[in-house]
Amino acid sequence: MEIRSKIAAKVRQMKKGLGKVPGLAVILVGQRRDSQTYVRNKIMACEEVGIKSLVTELPTDCAVTDVQNAIMRFNKDPSIHGILVQLPLPQHLDEEKVLDAVCLEKDVDGFHPLNMGNLAIRGREPLFTPCTPKGCIELLIRSGVEIMGKKAVVIGTSNIVGLPASLLLQRHHATVTVIHAFTQNPEQITSEADIVVSAAGVPNLVRGNWIKPGAAVIDVGTTPVEDPGCEDGYRLAGDVCYEEAVKVASIITPVPGGVGPMTVAMLLCNTLDSAKRMLNFS
Amino acid sequence: MEIRSKIAAKVRQMKKGLGKVPGLAVILVGQRRDSQTYVRNKIMACEEVGIKSLVTELPTDCAVTDVQNAIMRFNKDPSIHGILVQLPLPQHLDEEKVLDAVCLEKDVDGFHPLNMGNLAIRGREPLFTPCTPKGCIELLIRSGVEIMGKKAVVIGTSNIVGLPASLLLQRHHATVTVIHAFTQNPEQITSEADIVVSAAGVPNLVRGNWIKPGAAVIDVGTTPVEDPGCEDGYRLAGDVCYEEAVKVASIITPVPGGVGPMTVAMLLCNTLDSAKRMLNFS
Repeated sequence: MEIRSKIAAKVRQMKKGLGKVPGLAVILVGQRRDSQTYVRNKIMACEEVGIKSLVTELPTDCAVTDVQNAIMRFNKDPSIHGILVQLPLPQHLDEEKVLDAVCLEKDVDGFHPLNMGNLAIRGREPLFTPCTPKGCIELLIRSGVEIMGKKAVVIGTSNIVGLPASLLLQRHHATVTVIHAFTQNPEQITSEADIVVSAAGVPNLVRGNWIKPGAAVIDVGTTPVEDPGCEDGYRLAGDVCYEEAVKVASIITPVPGGVGPMTVAMLLCNTLDSAKRMLNFS
Repeated sequence: MEIRSKIAAKVRQMKKGLGKVPGLAVILVGQRRDSQTYVRNKIMACEEVGIKSLVTELPTDCAVTDVQNAIMRFNKDPSIHGILVQLPLPQHLDEEKVLDAVCLEKDVDGFHPLNMGNLAIRGREPLFTPCTPKGCIELLIRSGVEIMGKKAVVIGTSNIVGLPASLLLQRHHATVTVIHAFTQNPEQITSEADIVVSAAGVPNLVRGNWIKPGAAVIDVGTTPVEDPGCEDGYRLAGDVCYEEAVKVASIITPVPGGVGPMTVAMLLCNTLDSAKRMLNFS
């Protein structure tokens, strides 16, 4: 992928110039199969472009202080420029307390409330933009989709995707409507949109008749669905009924293979950007 | 007004119990007539309910450090529980540098990016919610308007009103669309909304045919318009063409007299809440 080779080139340049490479720390709590897969993909991507990566695995029943301590260690480690806590955490852990422990300058996921606030506020710039929404915009731009002045619908209000995606689309001057569980007639609202970003986590929620002919459809849904026919015993299902929507949309991202790889690429970007900023390298 | 007498009662209780009252500091830079009026109204409201108020006036050509120093003094002053910088600032002053100097615990306007981030993020609570959007929600609730599941349109994307209003309406589970200068057919989108919050600052932007019959219309626009017939030489004009909209809407707020007094009431609320939190008084 073009983005990855650009990142790899910059990493080589940094290594040559400074004798240092960007470093990413990943913290994985528990044994969720899908989380393990995501972390593995991120680590492999780091290796591919020459970014150093460290993984700390913690047991499901660990205390919030254990996660915080792992974060603190990476906060202090000058060879680490990005820290990522793989979500979701086990239910008993307070996500707020965990995420707020990540120092702002290494918050490559962009989930710290100060980064989120600066993403929301006009005229300000967050240090990091969350990877998945950033990848959605990148996909739209690369596909030649105009965003400014277009009607966009974001389905889902998660802090990880729905919220930052709506803020980012607004930054690009789309007219954004956010759809959620309480929305009446979501199909009618969606069918008026030029751009649909779906991140509800409900397989086959978005049917072909929800899509305006020619719309751009970004499917962020990745719900693990049991499937004995698959290698891991499950497969990832998107929000969009692909076979129906592909007949109506101008562009549509498949699941898996659409947003996922772009999210990983944006994580590499954010980690590189962080290292450049911290090491004063341009 | 009912809210004010409740606040006054609580302030008296605090004075009796602790020998202390809430304190609000207002910083006014420059000579804008409308800003002077707003500040005067806020100070008068404080006096009415027994909140102590201090005003620091700075000349238009002051430096950003002058404003920051004034803020710092109030940050340290234990008799002050809320600090408010009257916006807009003169063009040459960096709003970001000024607002970020207000300590989080005294940010009664709720404009600090950490407060805004925590307003945006689901499952978190900001220390303060911006006064005008908070007043809009209060007006809707007091008028018996259901918000959950309703279509809401916010016209305008300002950091002070449009952005936090859209975030707050989403918190109340409305389906929110944000309209701005790049939006195509704003009248058509607005005409489908059950709730319209207009904060564009464009007099008479919203005409009667923009309003769905029975919709609730909150007009936040307060644009000073020259009017030699008025005492100060100007009057405040809303965004909504009142005479037309009043025939279609179920409720509509007038300008002046609608959102303005409610904004002031919410500022008193936020200042009282801050004092209660800092003085550990419930």
